[in-house]
Parts: sequence; structure tokens; C-alpha cells
Amino acid sequence: MNEALCDLTAIEMRDLLRVGEISARELLDAHLKRIERINPSVNAIVTLVPDLAAERAFKADEAFARGESLGVLHGLPVVHKDLVDTAGVRTTLGSPIFKNRVPEHDDLIVERQREAGAVMVGKSNTPEFGAGSQTFNEVFGVTSNPYNTSFTCGGSSGGAAVALAARMVPLADGSDLGGSLRNPASFCNVVGFRPSGGRVPTVPNTDLWVPMSTTGPMARTVSDIALFMQAIAGPHHLAPSSNTESPAIFAGSLERDFRGVKVAWSPDLGGLPVDMAVRTALADVPNTLSDLGCEVVEVWPDLSDAPEIFQTLRAWMFSFKYAPLLETHREQLKDTVVWNAEKGLSMSMRDHAEACFKQARMFAQLQRFMNEFEFLACPVTQVPPFSKDIEYIEEIEGVRFDTYIDWMRSCSDISTTTHPAISVPAAFTGDGLPVGLQLIGRSRQDRSVLELAHAYEQSTGIAQRRPALLDS
Amino acid sequence: MNEALCDLTAIEMRDLLRVGEISARELLDAHLKRIERINPSVNAIVTLVPDLAAERAFKADEAFARGESLGVLHGLPVVHKDLVDTAGVRTTLGSPIFKNRVPEHDDLIVERQREAGAVMVGKSNTPEFGAGSQTFNEVFGVTSNPYNTSFTCGGSSGGAAVALAARMVPLADGSDLGGSLRNPASFCNVVGFRPSGGRVPTVPNTDLWVPMSTTGPMARTVSDIALFMQAIAGPHHLAPSSNTESPAIFAGSLERDFRGVKVAWSPDLGGLPVDMAVRTALADVPNTLSDLGCEVVEVWPDLSDAPEIFQTLRAWMFSFKYAPLLETHREQLKDTVVWNAEKGLSMSMRDHAEACFKQARMFAQLQRFMNEFEFLACPVTQVPPFSKDIEYIEEIEGVRFDTYIDWMRSCSDISTTTHPAISVPAAFTGDGLPVGLQLIGRSRQDRSVLELAHAYEQSTGIAQRRPALLDS
Repeated sequence: MNEALCDLTAIEMRDLLRVGEISARELLDAHLKRIERINPSVNAIVTLVPDLAAERAFKADEAFARGESLGVLHGLPVVHKDLVDTAGVRTTLGSPIFKNRVPEHDDLIVERQREAGAVMVGKSNTPEFGAGSQTFNEVFGVTSNPYNTSFTCGGSSGGAAVALAARMVPLADGSDLGGSLRNPASFCNVVGFRPSGGRVPTVPNTDLWVPMSTTGPMARTVSDIALFMQAIAGPHHLAPSSNTESPAIFAGSLERDFRGVKVAWSPDLGGLPVDMAVRTALADVPNTLSDLGCEVVEVWPDLSDAPEIFQTLRAWMFSFKYAPLLETHREQLKDTVVWNAEKGLSMSMRDHAEACFKQARMFAQLQRFMNEFEFLACPVTQVPPFSKDIEYIEEIEGVRFDTYIDWMRSCSDISTTTHPAISVPAAFTGDGLPVGLQLIGRSRQDRSVLELAHAYEQSTGIAQRRPALLDS
Repeated sequence: MNEALCDLTAIEMRDLLRVGEISARELLDAHLKRIERINPSVNAIVTLVPDLAAERAFKADEAFARGESLGVLHGLPVVHKDLVDTAGVRTTLGSPIFKNRVPEHDDLIVERQREAGAVMVGKSNTPEFGAGSQTFNEVFGVTSNPYNTSFTCGGSSGGAAVALAARMVPLADGSDLGGSLRNPASFCNVVGFRPSGGRVPTVPNTDLWVPMSTTGPMARTVSDIALFMQAIAGPHHLAPSSNTESPAIFAGSLERDFRGVKVAWSPDLGGLPVDMAVRTALADVPNTLSDLGCEVVEVWPDLSDAPEIFQTLRAWMFSFKYAPLLETHREQLKDTVVWNAEKGLSMSMRDHAEACFKQARMFAQLQRFMNEFEFLACPVTQVPPFSKDIEYIEEIEGVRFDTYIDWMRSCSDISTTTHPAISVPAAFTGDGLPVGLQLIGRSRQDRSVLELAHAYEQSTGIAQRRPALLDS
């Protein structure tokens, strides 16, 4: 099979599949060949299911032959993050405790891709329980950045980002509490979209309401993200706060005239430490946005309550998801997970309620800010990709951090209000490492974010820069 | 002015207003006359604003004269619960601490009624901070049941229910955490609809996500509830989990053929203590539903986790809304509020997280149950109206309760999953006291609930039974 097929976008693949120019089986084989050749260098796909994939591709081709109506992801190879359950396929959550776990049911995001005709080829690597923005764990080891395999791909949807960057699949799901769809996209020159709260519902869910943690789409182009959203967005009867809008709102052209649209640009969100390499790489952002017609103003919203809100609600989640494991499997948990669960156990109910109160106030503040500015643009991550020997960043530009997640504030501050946010390829550092731009939209205006990101992507062409590894 | 106008439904009033048969001013004057005559006997409307109301009625009539397009509540007199803020009009929350408080801004539910053309005539009484299902407080005293003024009207939207029953307004808003839209409706022979979570958003909100506490509509007929919903339902940009469906879904006929529709009926939700007077009053419910064509089965969902979930999340809310007052105004808080706030302060964050986890599990259980049964029917309240000298019920049928809210479980158990639930007039006890039927629909299927309630109301005609007080 011709590996060149792997370089197409998902939409281009779909178009060839729909006219019968290629078959799902051919497309799968091209990707399996690519995976066989490249995956050992990067360790992105940690469970491969070629037989199951072949079966699904065969069924897809049969459906096409019978003239059946085809799902929006018909025949497209995908990987699922190893944090989401896949029926009959090992799902470890990156934890040695669960290294042999095989779930009985698909999570909703998996089920929706399957029903839309996607062909699962395997599972993508994630840090233990998705904790931390560096993709390593005791089960499968570390995942490498395809632009420089000594460097991290970021995380926690690191395996997904690398699988996309190395053209091993055209679409991959991920999830994002504090930046896990955006940070690895930024580090790997792909697109990661954190949808607004409730847009891509989590089912089964351990909590019905707070959508700070969300699943979402990753791809190599913004148009492919929109295609993906048509399959995975939309309400569900077991998610009572899911957004009731139809996923069909993501169909149709993303072209839009941005003349006169007001965009707030902040290179540091009002004082976060940002590595000079990132500042330099993004120096042209205001010009590029202006060239699109936007009115760009250097200004930022007040996010000063965000770290407390984020840390409290994160600890709340750890207090019931992972604290029970402290008693039964403490020695098999990484230190940062232990710390985060114990932090949750030490807090009072009022601490949580106060954080929710501050969250509501901050949300309203940000919405008022965004009544004036339709978009906020800022760096995705405060540092460029770093050595994969470093577990997390402890200092930026002389500012030292207390916890393993403080270095992710440019992402996690934004998570606290569940506004939609995307990482779009924007630049490379002098060392040849990718740097993404974060674009944030008004609450629930997911489509608008994709429209601006699409225009930005078209104007820079950065997304087309492939890892040299592919041609070695 | 002719008080007879007050006996019309809101829709009948609207129809007369729209053809110019009556003016908003005439309609207001009829209601003010009624209020003057009846309110002193029941103490439902605790702040009256006749001058402001006259001004708004005048503006409504001017808009009509100019041929402007009219809001769905054009010219209709309303009262707002004294828990929701009304710009420039005293809002006490039923607390002596706030007895002179005059807010600067309208809450969203007030703003939406005003924008839809409603004419505010005043504020309706509520227990202190809406806590407890009996309407008394230190600021305004107790509100009486118009069917027997020695008895309670229930609560916490007690003033609203009495204002409706005594035909002092055709529409009144309320709110419901543990039954406060349903219990007073049941006790006063009117309709109270607890919308599904996010349907009628709360803005400003102290918490963005958990919709267990919700505002909602009360009226004398189900069709009037549907009219009201067209004004107050719908998404808002400051409520990121509000339901995005248009309020226009509540327009149009509520007629539906219920033949073959499966309804679960439970006289005690599987073992709650229920007063014999309520059991007797509702004995005919299965027959009435069968006569509508429904397939009625006596069966109930497993709600055994509901009390723990409800008590924990209620204490969570008290821990940040009212606990600060413990330090500054403890002597001005009623005992039950002190108890509830202190309970919240004593709990851990993990207690809250566990309750949310159980809530998600119970929600999924109930949705599975309701895949089979489109509706669940049960009593609104486990007791009929009781003496207004009793603050809360401590025992039913030999079962003693630990807290001031345990007697409300037939309502509060349902609140935990935020399914839509209505109280519709169903019967009178041998003592001439009203008893409502509770109808619960699938998650977010608010309109379906109104359709069944409308059919039920039509078939019994109970709603037409006026309090004798009106004719004395």
C-alpha cells in the first residue's frame, strides 16, 4: 500500500472513499504500514488492533458496495485515547493497576465514532490517569515528539497528537481538563479543540454537571476538526447538561469575513511567565490577525481567581476518582496523583462551594469581556516542547512553581470557565519545535472558534510542515 | 372595576387584551380590587406596587394603541417571589436581616417577564431564604391557605400559590429546590411546574452548573403554564448550562393522544409514609390515567440514594450562601437555617464528590426506568395541608423524621435528578383541602409533562374549584 494516502486530510480521504476511488481497506493498510514503520520511534499507539480494524474496514466497504447511507466518518482510521473505554479492547488509563483491564462497553465518544463509520486502529498513549501534560507511564513508557524524539509531545492527549503529526491516523480523540487537548497539539503542530462545556458529552459520567473535563477532537486541519465534531457533538439522554444543539451546526464551509472583528491578544495573559522562545515564535500573531481584517488590541481579561478555582475543582475530582486507590494500590500510583488525591481529601465542602461561587463570578466577568472582544488569542503553552526526561516544568523565566500543574496556566485558566478554545499551528522555534496559538471564543460559540482558526491556518500554512522523521 | 375578570385564565385575559376588548389598566384595576379585598385574609402578597404597576399597564396600553408587536405576557398582572430580585422594589428573602433591602437589578426571570409585557403588582411571600415548605417568616408573618385560612399554603412558593388560588394574579413565578413549586401548588389547587434542569436559567447565579434549585412558573391551568414558559424559558449567555432549545417549543396546542402511553403509578414511591387522606384522595388516579388511554402499571424506580444526595447538595448550597451570616447575624436566622448551614460546614469535599457520583448513577437508573415508562405519577406531598401553627411535619403514619425536610421526600427525591415534574390539581380531601398529583417526565421532556398534565386537568375539572373565601 501507498503510504502517501496518509498525508491526505480526513476530508480528502472521505471524498476519495465516497466516490469509490479508494476503499476503507486500502486506506487502513496504508496507515498500518505507516504505523509499523514510524510508531516504534515515537510510541504513540500503545495498543494496536489490526484484525478488528480490518473487520470494520471490510464492513465499511460492504456498506459502500450496497449503496447504504454512510456515516460522516465512513472508513476513516482513528485511535482512541487510552483513557476512554473501548469494548473488548484493553484500556489501561496509563496505570499499572489497570494494565490488563478490558472494558465491556464503549464510552460515548467511541460509540459515536464507530456509529459514524470510523475504523479504530488502536489506543493512544496518555499519562497515568491523564494527570500532567507529559505523556509517560509505567505501562507503556514515554511518547516522543516526532519533530525531535528527544523531546516530549506534551499531554495528556500526547499519543493522539503524535499519531496525527506522524500521519498514522487522520483523526484522534482526546480529553482536556487543564489543557490536554491543546498542549500536545501545540507541541506537535496539529490542531486540538477543547469544545465548550456540554458540547461533546461524557457518558458514562461520574458527575452530571461540571464540564471542566471534556472529551474532544484532534486532527491536522481545522476543517477535519469540524468534520469530527459532526460525529461526536450533540446531546445525549444520559447527559442532562449536554448542549441540545444539533451537531449539524458543524457542517458547511468555515469561511468567514473577519474584517472588523475585535480580537484581544495577550502574549502572557497579563503576567504569566512565558519562555522567550514562545514569545518570539508568536510575535507575528497580531499582524497575522490584522491581515485577516481583525481589529487586534493587546488586552486581557482578569483571570486572577482561576488558579484557585482550577486547583480546587481538580482536587475535588481526584478525591473521588482516585482517592479510593490510595488505600488499595498506593505504591502503584505516581507521586503527583497521590499528592492531588490527598489534597482533595484534605479540603472541606465549603472550599468547593467557594470555588464554584468564584467560578460563576469569573465566568460572568469573562463573558462581559467577550461582549467587547469576540475572541481572545494567547499562547497555548508557556514553554516550547522540552526534554522528555523532565516530568513537568518547575520554573519559567525565573518564576518557580509549587505544583506539577502550575506551568499549564495559559491552558488551565481558560478551562475554568469552559469557554471553547483551540490550539492551531502557528510557528516553529529556532530549534525547529512547534508552537501553537490558542484562540478562545465566547461561551458555547464553538463554530466561531473553528472559523477563526481555519482562517488563521490558511494564512500561515504552518500546519503543512511535516516531521522530517517521516521521510527518513 | 369588575372583579370577574380575575376569574379568567391568563390565556383568556390575553385574548381579550389582544382584540382591545379590555385594557391592561382595566385588568390591573380588577386585580388590585381583588387584592385589596382578599389579601388581608391570606397575606400572600407582602409588597404591593400599585403605582409602578399602573405605569407599566399604561405603557402596555400605549404599545397596543400604537400597534406595536406585543410580548407573550402583554398586560398580564404577575407577582414575583420575594426570593428573586426586583430592581427598585424591596426584596427581603423572607429574612429580617434583609427586611429593608432594595436591589438594583432584576433577576433574569423578572427581566424576562417584564420584557414579555407582564405587569408586576408586587412580591409574594416565602419562608426565610425559601427554607422549608411552610410559608412564614419574621418579616411578614404567615401566609394562609385560601381553602381554609387556619391551614398552611405550603411553600416555599406559598405566597405565589395563594395569590393564584385567590385569583389575585393569573401568573406567578416561584422556585424549587426540594419541592417549592410543587408543594404549595398541591396545597392550593393550582399548577406548579418544576422545569428540567437548565430550562429556566437562574441569572445571576452563584453556581454555574448544578440545576437542582430552579425557578419556574405557577398558574391556574396547564395551558397558562405553557404560555408562561414561552417568556421565561430559553438559554442565556451568562448560564453556560442552560438548555439551548427555543422557548417557542412551548407554543401550540397541548392536545395529545395518550392511548398506549406507559405510565408508572406509585402511591408512595415504594414505601414512603403517606397520610391516609392523601392516599384516599388520589385513589382514582390510575383510573383517570387509564381513561385517557394510558397503560398504567403500579411500579416505581429505585430512589434509595436520593435522600443522601439531596441532603448533601442542599447543605453544600447552604454552606456558602448562608454560612457567612452565622458569623454576623446568627441571632436573626431561624433554627432550621442555622442547622442546615452548620451541616454544610461540617462536611468534607469528598462527601460532596461522593454525592455527585451517586447522583450521576441514580440519574442513569431513572432514565433507564423511563425508557420503559414515559411518565411517573405519584403524590406531590405525603400529607394534606396542615395547621399553620406547625412549622414542619415531624411524623407521618407513625414514621418519625430526623430533619425539617424529610417529610418532603416525594418532591425532593425527584429534585435530585432534575427531571421535569408538575403538580396538577387532582382531588380534595373529605375536609375540603386540595391534593395535587405529581407527574414526572423524561429528562428535559418538559413539554410532554405539560401535555399529560393538560389532559389530566381537562378530565377531572378539579382546577375549577374556587376557594369559598372569594365569594364570602
